[in-house]
Amino acid sequence: MKLAMIGLGKMGGSMARRLLRAGMEVVGYDHDPKVVAQLSAKDEMSAAASVADAVAQLPIPRIVWLMLPSGEPTEQQIQALTPMLSAGDIIVDGGNSNYHDSQRRGAWLAEQGIGFMDAGTSGGVWGLENGYCLMVGGSVGVVKTMQPVLQVLAPSPEHGWARVGPVGAGHFAKMIHNGIEYGMMQSLAEGLELLRGKQEFDLDLAQITELWRHGSVVRSWLLDLTAKALQANQDLETIAPYVPDSGEGRWTVIESVDQGVATPVLTSALQMRFASRNERGYGFRLLSLMRNAFGGHAVKRTE
Amino acid sequence: MKLAMIGLGKMGGSMARRLLRAGMEVVGYDHDPKVVAQLSAKDEMSAAASVADAVAQLPIPRIVWLMLPSGEPTEQQIQALTPMLSAGDIIVDGGNSNYHDSQRRGAWLAEQGIGFMDAGTSGGVWGLENGYCLMVGGSVGVVKTMQPVLQVLAPSPEHGWARVGPVGAGHFAKMIHNGIEYGMMQSLAEGLELLRGKQEFDLDLAQITELWRHGSVVRSWLLDLTAKALQANQDLETIAPYVPDSGEGRWTVIESVDQGVATPVLTSALQMRFASRNERGYGFRLLSLMRNAFGGHAVKRTE
Amino acid sequence: MKLAMIGLGKMGGSMARRLLRAGMEVVGYDHDPKVVAQLSAKDEMSAAASVADAVAQLPIPRIVWLMLPSGEPTEQQIQALTPMLSAGDIIVDGGNSNYHDSQRRGAWLAEQGIGFMDAGTSGGVWGLENGYCLMVGGSVGVVKTMQPVLQVLAPSPEHGWARVGPVGAGHFAKMIHNGIEYGMMQSLAEGLELLRGKQEFDLDLAQITELWRHGSVVRSWLLDLTAKALQANQDLETIAPYVPDSGEGRWTVIESVDQGVATPVLTSALQMRFASRNERGYGFRLLSLMRNAFGGHAVKRTE
Amino acid sequence: MKLAMIGLGKMGGSMARRLLRAGMEVVGYDHDPKVVAQLSAKDEMSAAASVADAVAQLPIPRIVWLMLPSGEPTEQQIQALTPMLSAGDIIVDGGNSNYHDSQRRGAWLAEQGIGFMDAGTSGGVWGLENGYCLMVGGSVGVVKTMQPVLQVLAPSPEHGWARVGPVGAGHFAKMIHNGIEYGMMQSLAEGLELLRGKQEFDLDLAQITELWRHGSVVRSWLLDLTAKALQANQDLETIAPYVPDSGEGRWTVIESVDQGVATPVLTSALQMRFASRNERGYGFRLLSLMRNAFGGHAVKRTE
Repeated sequence: MKLAMIGLGKMGGSMARRLLRAGMEVVGYDHDPKVVAQLSAKDEMSAAASVADAVAQLPIPRIVWLMLPSGEPTEQQIQALTPMLSAGDIIVDGGNSNYHDSQRRGAWLAEQGIGFMDAGTSGGVWGLENGYCLMVGGSVGVVKTMQPVLQVLAPSPEHGWARVGPVGAGHFAKMIHNGIEYGMMQSLAEGLELLRGKQEFDLDLAQITELWRHGSVVRSWLLDLTAKALQANQDLETIAPYVPDSGEGRWTVIESVDQGVATPVLTSALQMRFASRNERGYGFRLLSLMRNAFGGHAVKRTE
Repeated sequence: MKLAMIGLGKMGGSMARRLLRAGMEVVGYDHDPKVVAQLSAKDEMSAAASVADAVAQLPIPRIVWLMLPSGEPTEQQIQALTPMLSAGDIIVDGGNSNYHDSQRRGAWLAEQGIGFMDAGTSGGVWGLENGYCLMVGGSVGVVKTMQPVLQVLAPSPEHGWARVGPVGAGHFAKMIHNGIEYGMMQSLAEGLELLRGKQEFDLDLAQITELWRHGSVVRSWLLDLTAKALQANQDLETIAPYVPDSGEGRWTVIESVDQGVATPVLTSALQMRFASRNERGYGFRLLSLMRNAFGGHAVKRTE
Repeated sequence: MKLAMIGLGKMGGSMARRLLRAGMEVVGYDHDPKVVAQLSAKDEMSAAASVADAVAQLPIPRIVWLMLPSGEPTEQQIQALTPMLSAGDIIVDGGNSNYHDSQRRGAWLAEQGIGFMDAGTSGGVWGLENGYCLMVGGSVGVVKTMQPVLQVLAPSPEHGWARVGPVGAGHFAKMIHNGIEYGMMQSLAEGLELLRGKQEFDLDLAQITELWRHGSVVRSWLLDLTAKALQANQDLETIAPYVPDSGEGRWTVIESVDQGVATPVLTSALQMRFASRNERGYGFRLLSLMRNAFGGHAVKRTE
Repeated sequence: MKLAMIGLGKMGGSMARRLLRAGMEVVGYDHDPKVVAQLSAKDEMSAAASVADAVAQLPIPRIVWLMLPSGEPTEQQIQALTPMLSAGDIIVDGGNSNYHDSQRRGAWLAEQGIGFMDAGTSGGVWGLENGYCLMVGGSVGVVKTMQPVLQVLAPSPEHGWARVGPVGAGHFAKMIHNGIEYGMMQSLAEGLELLRGKQEFDLDLAQITELWRHGSVVRSWLLDLTAKALQANQDLETIAPYVPDSGEGRWTVIESVDQGVATPVLTSALQMRFASRNERGYGFRLLSLMRNAFGGHAVKRTE
């Protein structure tokens, strides 16, 4: 089996490598030629100088797997790529695209006879070793064609990948997965902040998180990683209290609004990330202003 | 009618003044003698050099109104004051005490024949002109004795004061009032932050808040004050994004936990104040650590 | 001044009436001919048998004010109406449209030389008497043309209406207004639920809300109405615990996600409305299932 | 090693059994004699007819492990038990007591020379097989004495138990553990509710949760159990949407208020449980009342 991997960053590069290690043929392209050269030299990946070059190296039917940032980069690549393909070829979007976009793209490609599969991919940087959890949306036929690839990428041929529904369903499931991930992370962060704040007990957070890994109800992979990361240093002095977010957490909240379902935890988890980056604090300034206005309370001034 | 006012700060001082203006006799004491001297000079208040001196100047039955910080200051003053009083005298706690404390104090004073009234007081620095909203807890008899005072302090003899229940009920109602106040303030702050954040429209927040004062559903006293405060300057550059909280907001959340009632808005309003003061951001640092651990995401470093 | 009012429901009908009382000429149309007949008979409104008829009765430049449900009804009406108009005419959308829609419509109408004004309207059923708070978006020229109408609809010629920005800004301000409204309502509801839940004090919520109207920090129009409504009956036994929501509360949350601003109170207020309507409770069932699975806790069964 | 286990319910009974299987001598007492008889017959536990009888069967120094409901049952048992013990004996509280209580009890017992250890215990009904995660608070000496017992109860002699700090620290860590547990459960419940609500995709929640167990970021023991429980039936029709809560979730929220730390996720998780049991919905009725009062919106009536 041979496919093209477009986008060889943290995720795409590792996935290409995992496929190559399993004996698959991968033609790789990235906008950074160094990355292509490195994978080509070390991992026997076929280097492509352009997307067109990658496509040209593929047997028919062609399979092109995209691992690109969601939004514009993915959109533009699909627009550019499609004229190079023919009926019967398959595009896989393994990135974190919005499922509405995937539905739209799938329908548009179908009109041209091109198959589309959205493969929500979880597992982070550990996927190279552990395998990736793949939530797949697409027609039964397309998914069947892709099965050998999915079996290699997943933790095992049987487990860790599944067709969860039609086109869009894969990215939908991935979106919800990430929403849950935000909630679990925030749960841990809040609990650990309270442990840390109880100065009277002078608790060792590395010890407690390690302890919880064995037999407790909260044992989880996120806890495993947190325990390990805290072993070295739990003061976290050099880490800024600044937490980015990517699209899925936001889309999960918007989905909850669309469905009319209360998701206070998933929403709070997102909003706390917003709060971590709110240097301006305009709302807080307003509250201080109001307290002064009605109660004569002193206003703390900026320095 | 003559009473002693113990504590002549922002609230107590203004309340003494309002009573004096209405022709009542007020003996005033504060731990800051300058404040006593000033009110004595300008407003014809009888100065007291100590609480004992204040008590000594009162006719029997004595009425002592406390306007002190809640917690220890109020507790200690009641402990110190009680031996100076006799059966039939009345202590009023007009501060922001926890209603559990008021219930305990009321019961303890009742054993000694001393009346107790908890008078939750709202109105802030505007009370001197507008009158104070007084939520009163106590026996019917004690409240009846206090009626002439309440009629002066309130916005009108009929409106703005009421006996809402037995001892403790006054501070309970005040606690809930402040919980609601936090929620309303946060509602305004969040909405205005979104108005401000919509740079495309370059909205004038002073204009819009003023506009809402006339005929809109959100018109309110907090809006009146906010609109006025924004007239001068809506950049708020010199105000730090730092919002203190006092006991009632916290007690409201604890009450909701005790009752088993979901109060997400009152709770969020309190928690946002906590967030405004969280310079350490340990939970945020943990989130950043976790993201790095599972996804290899770059960690923003402190400078 | 003469204009057409399309949509004579709770809001549109009252606004037509307010204009007519001030001596303006109003041509009215509604899909329910009875409503048209009634306003025509009682209030001397010119009846229109169709939108085309309404347009035909207008002098040039024509002014058509829409008071329709947002979304499809407004969209379709604007699509149908536009071919009947000419350059220089003005369409006003006084409904609760999404500001993105208003921006799109304004741009599309501008291409045809037709003026557009979005007039976010607050005040509810009390607007007929009190006047409406009008947040207006549009060009300076269009708003100037509409000024005589706005001065009549608002609580006074000077107050309660304003041009807050270009097309879209009016509906944007109205959206935020409603977000704040949700937050204030939920603040009151939560506080009063805690008052009610404190059975020990047997509090009279009609008394306390009335009391707070005088001198307290939470005094507000929503409190005025709540106090009045509770006078008759505070058990609320015949009112179902079921709270609808309309678009603005949802759009406010989506706006906060788009801006990346934490709005926990506005969001919780919306989510509690969702929760009030969640008869299925699938998430709660899942929690019960999980508790059973790890802790052997008994599951409450449906009856 | 020999100890008395007081309270042989779901947790205590299984812990006694695990100790017996490892060859420890356990004297067991429960207020239900049938439970005692059963463990005595099947598992060779020494039956005690009363707490006094249990104490009488112990060698000196005596070790009494309590597995009782927190609050009054634990308090009363410690009060009743203490006079039967002598200096050098040890009481272990393995239940879910509030850490403030444990601190108080530890200090009181220390005055009498009796050792106290608080052992927060996680693992649920699976602990018999898997072992229990034990978060232990107490003096170094007391914990050393208890080490052989802890090594048997934990998943392995080395892992799954630790002295996290002085008396109280064990129950503190357990409280936070449960707070996090609530947050993780609610995260899963919200995400799965959104999966379920997306009818268009007709997703199979048993499939997706099973899928996530392999390689995804959210893999966790709670997910394992949820996936398994959903295999049989994902409609959950017979499970009522009703979720109890126990003390620790509430205490975690109170702790966050005491520390002044925002914990929106842990708090929301608790509040949603409150909401699941709020049949009265007084707050919702109030919202409906308000909507009617200002906007004339129809009120849904109870049937």
